[in-house]
Amino acid sequence: MKYPFLLYRGEHFNANFFHYSGVDIDHSFLIVEGKHQTLLTPKMNLREAAATFKGTVIPYQDVFKELKKLLRGNVGIDGMHVGFSITERLKKFCKPQDVSRELLVARMRKSESEISKIKNAVKETKGIFKSLKIKRGTTEAQIKRQLLLGTLERGLVPAFEPIVAADSNSSFPHYKTGHARVNEMVLVDYGVRYKNYCADITRCFFVKKDSKKREAYKKVQDIFDNTIEQLPKLKSAKELAAYSAKLFKKSKLPELPHAIGHGIGLEVHEFPRLGKKSTDKLAGSTFAIEPSAYFHDFGVRYENTVYFDGKKVEVF
Amino acid sequence: MKYPFLLYRGEHFNANFFHYSGVDIDHSFLIVEGKHQTLLTPKMNLREAAATFKGTVIPYQDVFKELKKLLRGNVGIDGMHVGFSITERLKKFCKPQDVSRELLVARMRKSESEISKIKNAVKETKGIFKSLKIKRGTTEAQIKRQLLLGTLERGLVPAFEPIVAADSNSSFPHYKTGHARVNEMVLVDYGVRYKNYCADITRCFFVKKDSKKREAYKKVQDIFDNTIEQLPKLKSAKELAAYSAKLFKKSKLPELPHAIGHGIGLEVHEFPRLGKKSTDKLAGSTFAIEPSAYFHDFGVRYENTVYFDGKKVEVF
Repeated sequence: MKYPFLLYRGEHFNANFFHYSGVDIDHSFLIVEGKHQTLLTPKMNLREAAATFKGTVIPYQDVFKELKKLLRGNVGIDGMHVGFSITERLKKFCKPQDVSRELLVARMRKSESEISKIKNAVKETKGIFKSLKIKRGTTEAQIKRQLLLGTLERGLVPAFEPIVAADSNSSFPHYKTGHARVNEMVLVDYGVRYKNYCADITRCFFVKKDSKKREAYKKVQDIFDNTIEQLPKLKSAKELAAYSAKLFKKSKLPELPHAIGHGIGLEVHEFPRLGKKSTDKLAGSTFAIEPSAYFHDFGVRYENTVYFDGKKVEVF
Repeated sequence: MKYPFLLYRGEHFNANFFHYSGVDIDHSFLIVEGKHQTLLTPKMNLREAAATFKGTVIPYQDVFKELKKLLRGNVGIDGMHVGFSITERLKKFCKPQDVSRELLVARMRKSESEISKIKNAVKETKGIFKSLKIKRGTTEAQIKRQLLLGTLERGLVPAFEPIVAADSNSSFPHYKTGHARVNEMVLVDYGVRYKNYCADITRCFFVKKDSKKREAYKKVQDIFDNTIEQLPKLKSAKELAAYSAKLFKKSKLPELPHAIGHGIGLEVHEFPRLGKKSTDKLAGSTFAIEPSAYFHDFGVRYENTVYFDGKKVEVF
């Protein structure tokens, strides 16, 4: 990074803040300047910060008063998470520069320890999927409950709210789980968070023979397999998007209304982006690949989380 | 609001977005102009939006291209949730004005339906608290599990991650639940979300007779009762803060490292703010009151969610 940069962890977990600081302390600002880090935290979090954070800790009452002493000239800002309210006030004493892209790029290449955490998150998620009890008449809410209970039993937390979409509800990519009963099939999209790292898996379960729906599911599974096989020859996200689009055409499936996948790590959706306009590289990153087909009366999706070292792919 | 304003619901639930639109659709922008609302949503959410949102729905591929057609001149921005990255791009074709304060003020006075949802959230949370099984040797994680399980059993979701702090861990106001075993006492701070509305309750449980800790707990409970009794005579948040500070002094308790409470609704922390510098009014709002005392070796907190109509207080 060209200049010092400022991160903010407000009410919710902030991936960049945790990535750099190694701590997760609410309502705190982090200034990163080369190897030196300064954490500004409300008085009530002071003892926690002092005990866990490795850099300088400053308690604040009026945070802008403190920031004014520490920041001048160009200051990198996590423009995706630091709001307009804050940046307009910062402009009175420094020059905020949006570095949100650089911050996302910096998290793209995963360390061995990160990969192992994501792998573990996937393993636990798959364990939960395996224990699911689904039959005709089971409700979406009951399946969601099984997923959350499995997560709780493993001492973990959800990476995102489960999508459980029975029958025609599966035609909505981001359906909100309700109380519909499974008649023929159900789509389940879920992942847990393991030591802050996320998994993302989708499976369709069929409780009744239906050649049309099963066939569509088989097709997206084949696209997944084909994509994984081809991946070592694809150097960029753009090439991956183009390749998968070709497979969809060949399979006579409707065009995807979303990207073929997304980077995954401390966030469920992060870099690399896998859309056709992406300029991201793939080597060294973890991502989810999720070929899907949405029709008017149903949808199918098959999704796994993978790691690509640039030469070979590991499907977790 | 003086001008049309723009809200954004990205990866996570956004209270303002839901408050105005009545829907919760990811990666969507909402333009509110008097009674007319426009929702910009990615293609994949189009069918969901069309089925649930009452205003105009526009699918986007490049959202700025669409926003450019719709916005000019002064545009109110939720500056707490719309990042620097977005506002800098908006500045190319309109004049963003931070209206985050107005948005928070607009959510301060609760409708009957909102009050009833918050009341229900508290009722469910209290039910969960009542079912807790805590004895000497129970771990923080086990208590947390009971809270989350109780939430799941009620078909609800947590409003925030439970704080379960055994013994000396209770001296940290925002302690992160670990695996410590309860020896003498444990502080439990939790609330569920009911139809998107939050509860916030704190209780201390004692498993061993210890006059010092129990006495401190009794003192903060007394401060709570005294504050509630006085509330109808206190016209503003500032007066409430000043009154409670006086009670702390009188009780010879250490000064609070946080405000005496906080507004609650679609967010766990919202307006009215109850700090000594607050300019917010109290009438018509719901808030949590949480007198606490933090010592080096333990802490106590007693918290309830209340509604104040300007004349009388209802403790939920």
